[in-house]
Amino acid sequence: SLGWTDTDVRAVDTARVLAADAVQKTGNGHPGTAISLAPLAYLLYQNVIVHDVADPHWLGRDRFVLSNGHSSLTQYIQLFFDGFLEKSDISSLRTWGSKTPGHPEVHHTQGIDLTTGPLGSGVATGIGMAMAQRRQRGLYDPAAAPGESVFDHHVYIVAGDGCMMEGVASEASSLAGTQQLGNVTLIFDQNQISIEDDTDISFSEDVPKRYEAYGWDVRVVEWRTNHGTTSPTYVEDVDALFAAIEEGKKVLDKPTFIMLRTVIAWPSPKAQGTGKSHGSALGDDEVKGLKRELGFDPEQTFEVDEEMLAAVRKARAERSRLHRQAWNEQFAAWQQANPEGSQLLERVQAGQLPAGLDAALPSWEADEKGIATRAASGKVLTALADVMPELWGGSADLAESNNTTMAGQPSFLPDDRQTAMWRGNPYGRTLHFGVRENAMGMILNGIALEGLTRPYGGTFLVFSDYMRPAVRLGAIQQCDAIYVWTHDSIGLGEDGPTHQPIEHLASLRAIPGLDIVRPADANETAQVWKQVLARHGRPTGMILSRQALPVLDRSTMAGADGVAKGAYVLVEGSKSTPDVILIATGSEVSIAVTAAATLETQGVAARVVSMPCVEWFAEQDAAYQEQVLPAAVRARVSVEAGSSLGWREFVGDAGKIVAIDHFGASADGKRLFQEFGFTAEAVVAAAEASLARV
Amino acid sequence: SLGWTDTDVRAVDTARVLAADAVQKTGNGHPGTAISLAPLAYLLYQNVIVHDVADPHWLGRDRFVLSNGHSSLTQYIQLFFDGFLEKSDISSLRTWGSKTPGHPEVHHTQGIDLTTGPLGSGVATGIGMAMAQRRQRGLYDPAAAPGESVFDHHVYIVAGDGCMMEGVASEASSLAGTQQLGNVTLIFDQNQISIEDDTDISFSEDVPKRYEAYGWDVRVVEWRTNHGTTSPTYVEDVDALFAAIEEGKKVLDKPTFIMLRTVIAWPSPKAQGTGKSHGSALGDDEVKGLKRELGFDPEQTFEVDEEMLAAVRKARAERSRLHRQAWNEQFAAWQQANPEGSQLLERVQAGQLPAGLDAALPSWEADEKGIATRAASGKVLTALADVMPELWGGSADLAESNNTTMAGQPSFLPDDRQTAMWRGNPYGRTLHFGVRENAMGMILNGIALEGLTRPYGGTFLVFSDYMRPAVRLGAIQQCDAIYVWTHDSIGLGEDGPTHQPIEHLASLRAIPGLDIVRPADANETAQVWKQVLARHGRPTGMILSRQALPVLDRSTMAGADGVAKGAYVLVEGSKSTPDVILIATGSEVSIAVTAAATLETQGVAARVVSMPCVEWFAEQDAAYQEQVLPAAVRARVSVEAGSSLGWREFVGDAGKIVAIDHFGASADGKRLFQEFGFTAEAVVAAAEASLARV
Repeated sequence: SLGWTDTDVRAVDTARVLAADAVQKTGNGHPGTAISLAPLAYLLYQNVIVHDVADPHWLGRDRFVLSNGHSSLTQYIQLFFDGFLEKSDISSLRTWGSKTPGHPEVHHTQGIDLTTGPLGSGVATGIGMAMAQRRQRGLYDPAAAPGESVFDHHVYIVAGDGCMMEGVASEASSLAGTQQLGNVTLIFDQNQISIEDDTDISFSEDVPKRYEAYGWDVRVVEWRTNHGTTSPTYVEDVDALFAAIEEGKKVLDKPTFIMLRTVIAWPSPKAQGTGKSHGSALGDDEVKGLKRELGFDPEQTFEVDEEMLAAVRKARAERSRLHRQAWNEQFAAWQQANPEGSQLLERVQAGQLPAGLDAALPSWEADEKGIATRAASGKVLTALADVMPELWGGSADLAESNNTTMAGQPSFLPDDRQTAMWRGNPYGRTLHFGVRENAMGMILNGIALEGLTRPYGGTFLVFSDYMRPAVRLGAIQQCDAIYVWTHDSIGLGEDGPTHQPIEHLASLRAIPGLDIVRPADANETAQVWKQVLARHGRPTGMILSRQALPVLDRSTMAGADGVAKGAYVLVEGSKSTPDVILIATGSEVSIAVTAAATLETQGVAARVVSMPCVEWFAEQDAAYQEQVLPAAVRARVSVEAGSSLGWREFVGDAGKIVAIDHFGASADGKRLFQEFGFTAEAVVAAAEASLARV
Repeated sequence: SLGWTDTDVRAVDTARVLAADAVQKTGNGHPGTAISLAPLAYLLYQNVIVHDVADPHWLGRDRFVLSNGHSSLTQYIQLFFDGFLEKSDISSLRTWGSKTPGHPEVHHTQGIDLTTGPLGSGVATGIGMAMAQRRQRGLYDPAAAPGESVFDHHVYIVAGDGCMMEGVASEASSLAGTQQLGNVTLIFDQNQISIEDDTDISFSEDVPKRYEAYGWDVRVVEWRTNHGTTSPTYVEDVDALFAAIEEGKKVLDKPTFIMLRTVIAWPSPKAQGTGKSHGSALGDDEVKGLKRELGFDPEQTFEVDEEMLAAVRKARAERSRLHRQAWNEQFAAWQQANPEGSQLLERVQAGQLPAGLDAALPSWEADEKGIATRAASGKVLTALADVMPELWGGSADLAESNNTTMAGQPSFLPDDRQTAMWRGNPYGRTLHFGVRENAMGMILNGIALEGLTRPYGGTFLVFSDYMRPAVRLGAIQQCDAIYVWTHDSIGLGEDGPTHQPIEHLASLRAIPGLDIVRPADANETAQVWKQVLARHGRPTGMILSRQALPVLDRSTMAGADGVAKGAYVLVEGSKSTPDVILIATGSEVSIAVTAAATLETQGVAARVVSMPCVEWFAEQDAAYQEQVLPAAVRARVSVEAGSSLGWREFVGDAGKIVAIDHFGASADGKRLFQEFGFTAEAVVAAAEASLARV
């Protein structure tokens, strides 16, 4: 038994009252779950989660994920008890400049490890953290016995009914079962209320049975006793909950799922069990009623017993100190015993590239027949395997198509999940996400946030649509995730319109905080990888071709390292101030080069600019930008086998945009390029049209 | 027992050989599943699916959905047996202009009811068709006994391992359980092979158990007997499969899930059971081996026994005729007995609006305090409920926020799923999708493709990301689906960056074949609804504000019916050729109006253009476009609380774009508009800056 004292009980009730007051003061927010989950949250922070109230970034901490992020007060109030927040932060909930935004935001509030809000995302990202933990342990401390490594930690996820409905949680939970992740505990708060009130109208499944089907360790903690009878009772049996959590952690080869059956907003006298309490302030009367119910002064707001607070904070500080002290000693011993691992850890934490990176990067000779940039990317990954052990990744069931496998590296798999094609071990390096793009994206975010490895994941560019929620959260959270998106245009050919990206480049460029990089040939691909690995704080989408692209002749053109600036003059043309500028990306760069040569034969001085990354180019100073795209040259053409959206910015009023603004078709890719106007002739004609406008 | 003859067996084997030959000829494609699923496909088309080989659009037909669309040959070869395709179509697989693209495409190939390819999408869309069927029956023929209506039909979905991994299939399947859809049968071809070979590496769950958890009728048909032993055998027990299908159809209050355990590519001698056979041509030797195995001439390609073909086609034609004849009689009787229903059906099939629409549309008096466009939209829906019975919809658990409920209309729910808040019946009108945006989008497509009702579905604009795969498929398939996307900018306020759309308007406008409409006030909202309902062949996103917007004074400004042209001159300004044009959408239009007034006081003639729909404006002739945006006026400002991407096209080189290209924050929406520069002052300053450039 936990042996909770009156102080603990008072702390839990204080959390309920603070939640009600905070939402009431702001006038909007989500009080219900914060009130009824207060015992769970307090239990986790007080007795379960290993963390250091003096150091929110401590490497050895367990991770807490609030997947039902709208209930941010659930976490904020515990952070207040930790000492990371003060009472004034709670009372400034959801206001400009506060530390307590509507949903938890990593990098914004100390003690928050993950930005949540979009339902289900926390479940999937937390599972990603658990996967990261296992790989990190395998990378830095593989020999340690279970539970004996400084790299061991546990991930606790709290989720609501809405999270359980979202497909991304299903995807990740299925994979977690396959991966036998014993280091994650998912607590599903089943209060059967969502925004449309009683979930009976849309959600009648047997969730524990579903998690059994996924292969999880499944437990149910029932607080709603005699439910469905005429005399339902509600007993917040925290001991039973604690026992379920602790028993679940002993199951090392399965993730643990605990369904905790609660009544939302309990014990608010009238609001309990109602949909209204989910997402609206309770109202003055009800807040007072709640306070009376709990023995608080109904006329006071934000009432916190200072003695209780001091006791709770002291207990947490003491617990932190004990955990931290033991860990510090263990860490020092690990450092001593593992000088190479220590160096690697230092380098990765400092965000530095390995010394041998440049030497390891492959390069290619000029070759008209060429090589697909996806294939070049695969060769880069394999070449980097040894020098960059922190790099790892895989694909959403398209490994061979995405070229995401580093040759010879083991798969990240439980031993009994190996197959004839894929050998591996639990510490392996090649990830197999299955056909689950959104879960992949969320998992990459989780791995990136754990911070001790560098993850990538691949699918077809068209299926970036499926992972868009994860990509956006990756950008919001400044995750160092790398998306390998191949089959980047109608050039992929026969699979047809459902597989051919059109709008994707434009629509991904629209996402703030995300870099989209589309190299023109194999050498640009290698240089782009180097840049991406050197950069931090933004996810990156690598846009790669299915079809072979000529390897450009760098003896007559500029070097591929020009990609570092996002855009560079690839072919200067016959005048230093050209008549026309052709701007192209990826597979269309070689078309622009051919067009420029034709224009030159017609006496038109044509410059070719390769622009693999609009975002990197935007970072450059005005002088460099002017050098590449002189304002005086108003005759311009852009060529990209995607939507025209956004190109007017670069070609200007007089420019012409060679693009495709309709869906593709099923046929050979070369045929499609002809039919849909991605030819040197079309570019020449566009250049002439633009020249006629200036 | 089915009593299949030698002709049937030969037809099945011919299907296998044609599949192998077609992929071998093209050089790429997916032969494996088409070979091993030939008995299933033939069984369905020959003995199960009610359809008319003389009329692919017959109202009374069952629907067939191939969710594993890459195996398009599975369906194409049956369409060849139907007579919708010829052998030359099969042999021109995946080539320019053929009727047999890489993935099935509705509107492109007769007999295809759904475009598939993105895995899982067919499962969810097929479930949408089943939901549509129930509503259609309730709308047109509610009194008929079960199985006795001309509007009764069944939906058959075939899916593979990859479909079962995708979250969208999970979402829709859970909802199908809640909805107790007895009119859908999902056959899961479990061959345990996906592109990364043996699915053991990523997919180990117990799928039938999961479907039991969803509340489905679950059956397993085992063709891999003695599996896992040293002497595995494979018996294509078509009778057992047929029995499972027929028994499942007798369960009227649950959808049926049948797991059919197969060996991919069976009986190809070497390719069977391999990952390679999934997505690559088998190779000449293997194709010959398959032919030998089946008693075909290995030296011939596309060998079809004419006698067999004639017999199969004759049998299908005869079966069609019997079904059709009975249905025609029944339909005539229904028409006679239901003159009102018949009129409605005729009007809906003709794509016409009801006569009373204009009279029913609400309008609003000028009002500075105003009303949110989401609220206005809700009033429009309620006002249209009676005059437009074919219109129905709901929300992904945000009904009250999205204002998607027509007041007083019953929910679409099994009787025992009603709650205190939501009363309804199986034929009800208000849809409850749960927190499942992507499934909602797919279901809307299914409803639209069924064609006898007009569906809409709501969520927050930011969560359009979750449903993007469905939206794209809606656009590809020219579905008349309406997306009600509310909470359309940082103006939503406190929920913060995870809930505030930034890039969404731009990224949705990038999708071909989709209209994005953002009305400026309540009256534009009503007029926009009218336009959207009058249009067909493109899905539409309605972009609506959370916050109240002033109802513009139409006595001093142009009428709201100007929205029909996508953009119109709202405020003319003091000169017929203005000094500057302010282009705005949605909540920013009233800001632009204020800014124009300020500019006029400074002696600058400022025109305000309201541009609710870029796509509709692009449809107008050049004269109208020139009238609204005269080329001579180069000083221009755009104002939209979203990404700047795309606006250069309208403001030109000299223009200024008032936009937001970073994530938002959690605070009051008005504060955010101030902090992030969406004010009349900022617009005036931008106008001055643009004027300085011309």
